[in-house]
Amino acid sequence: MRVLVTGASGFVGRHAVPALAARGFIVHAVARAPMSGAVVHAADLLDEVQRRALIAEVAPSHLLHLAWDAEPGRYWTSPRNLDWVAASLDLARSFHEAGGRRLVVSGTCAEYAWGPPRFDEATSACRPATLYGAAKDGTRRILSAYAESVGLSFAWGRLFYLYGPGERRGRLVSDAAHALLTGAAFPTSPGHQARDFLHVVDTAGALAALLDSPVAGAVNIASGRAVSVRELLDGLAERTGRPDLLEYGARALGPSEPAVIEAAVARLAEEVGFRPRFTLETGLDDTLAWWRNHLAGESQTGSKPLI
Amino acid sequence: MRVLVTGASGFVGRHAVPALAARGFIVHAVARAPMSGAVVHAADLLDEVQRRALIAEVAPSHLLHLAWDAEPGRYWTSPRNLDWVAASLDLARSFHEAGGRRLVVSGTCAEYAWGPPRFDEATSACRPATLYGAAKDGTRRILSAYAESVGLSFAWGRLFYLYGPGERRGRLVSDAAHALLTGAAFPTSPGHQARDFLHVVDTAGALAALLDSPVAGAVNIASGRAVSVRELLDGLAERTGRPDLLEYGARALGPSEPAVIEAAVARLAEEVGFRPRFTLETGLDDTLAWWRNHLAGESQTGSKPLI
Repeated sequence: MRVLVTGASGFVGRHAVPALAARGFIVHAVARAPMSGAVVHAADLLDEVQRRALIAEVAPSHLLHLAWDAEPGRYWTSPRNLDWVAASLDLARSFHEAGGRRLVVSGTCAEYAWGPPRFDEATSACRPATLYGAAKDGTRRILSAYAESVGLSFAWGRLFYLYGPGERRGRLVSDAAHALLTGAAFPTSPGHQARDFLHVVDTAGALAALLDSPVAGAVNIASGRAVSVRELLDGLAERTGRPDLLEYGARALGPSEPAVIEAAVARLAEEVGFRPRFTLETGLDDTLAWWRNHLAGESQTGSKPLI
Repeated sequence: MRVLVTGASGFVGRHAVPALAARGFIVHAVARAPMSGAVVHAADLLDEVQRRALIAEVAPSHLLHLAWDAEPGRYWTSPRNLDWVAASLDLARSFHEAGGRRLVVSGTCAEYAWGPPRFDEATSACRPATLYGAAKDGTRRILSAYAESVGLSFAWGRLFYLYGPGERRGRLVSDAAHALLTGAAFPTSPGHQARDFLHVVDTAGALAALLDSPVAGAVNIASGRAVSVRELLDGLAERTGRPDLLEYGARALGPSEPAVIEAAVARLAEEVGFRPRFTLETGLDDTLAWWRNHLAGESQTGSKPLI
């Protein structure tokens, strides 16, 4: 089994490579720098020629497609979402036509119509409120029909909220951990909204398990239990001893932010058979341990943060 | 107002050019051969470089995008549907970024979930059963979000069943008209299924009216009244005097063919303000007149049919 992972330099991708290797896959990765455990290819997936040459060269039996525009603050509305739709459709087609058998693509909870607190793959409506959500939703709909028409095994791993080691700045947990460990104030929303957070190692592990299964269609990749942002941030502050740095209510929550976003995870648990390794408690410990180490390295070398 | 029409050599496109010119548009057309009333461009829209150069050269204020893979018998499942999704998204983006203001794209009744007899843009679910339907549906969803995010005026003209002069062979009315006028048997289904047919001149006229309006979102382009295939074929046979050539029941109707497909046309009639010129009766007269003329020309010159 030879898998090609796209977006392998990304937050999830870096953790997906070892998870796939542990399942016995020979791992080829599209990444910006060498990675241990994978043959790395430096292809620009938005370039048709490079994309098709990559598929021809690797001839993967499995494809885990994670790459997408993920520029913080921009990706919700960036027109580059359209380029990623096009690239993803062509990548899937090239993969199938080169003999590929099993495709998993990462989706987003932003595909769902906000409103109900809990989202189920079979019964919850998809009606995205953003360009990013619509681009993912449209890609899934088209790829599902394509896969069915050509007999390609296809699943869609719908990610919810992530946190963990190596998260780039500009995201909730990375910015909060950084502030709490460096003694900076952290202005934030009142924090009553509840979100379904999953440690990135478990997210990547779930995607690897999904790829390694025959389960078809959309599968929520999440913990199954939403926690309030306040509970999560308080957990970080307790561990760093600086709850005074959290400035709840200093920022407004966007008017379109629903109160609760929680995933039904019966498909992931029962059909895929995946159980997370981390609880929120052990996950926060792990994340802060990484940040302490990262900040120590940074202060020793005087270098700018890599993340 | 300068409009670019794609697919202008196609069945609808040929009739859209005069309809747009009649509304005062300066018409640029992507077509395979010269057309009266339009500046013709011979661009391959699946080629990114040609596509973008075309938009830069024409700098249209309006875009009527009709081009898509339409190979009879193949287009329902062709992987080229994926290429047309990608080309359509990039065309829309290039158009907007070059200053384009109003975009109309042709969709299909195959976007709807079959089951109910009558399809309404606001309340009927879209759940296509085919790759073609899914590709159109996904394109619409993504373009809607893109248009909203960048402030582009956008509508989607959802076509139902078409007939009329110049229809290529391999379609119901063109094949039936040809058989009835040449004395050939026409084996067909029992013909009880009812479909919403609109004359192609009215279809093109409705799309031109939609482009020339500020109406946003999906708009059914149809007559609003389904007729049974039997009623339509009997109408052709009465006019040609050879009802004996119709072999009802000689072919089975596909199991996934619903009994009735009819459009709600309140949006088209009231918001766009469009009324068809043809009834089914005058439309069949017009279609047979064209075929008589076409076949007469063919027998005089001894040439193969052009259509």
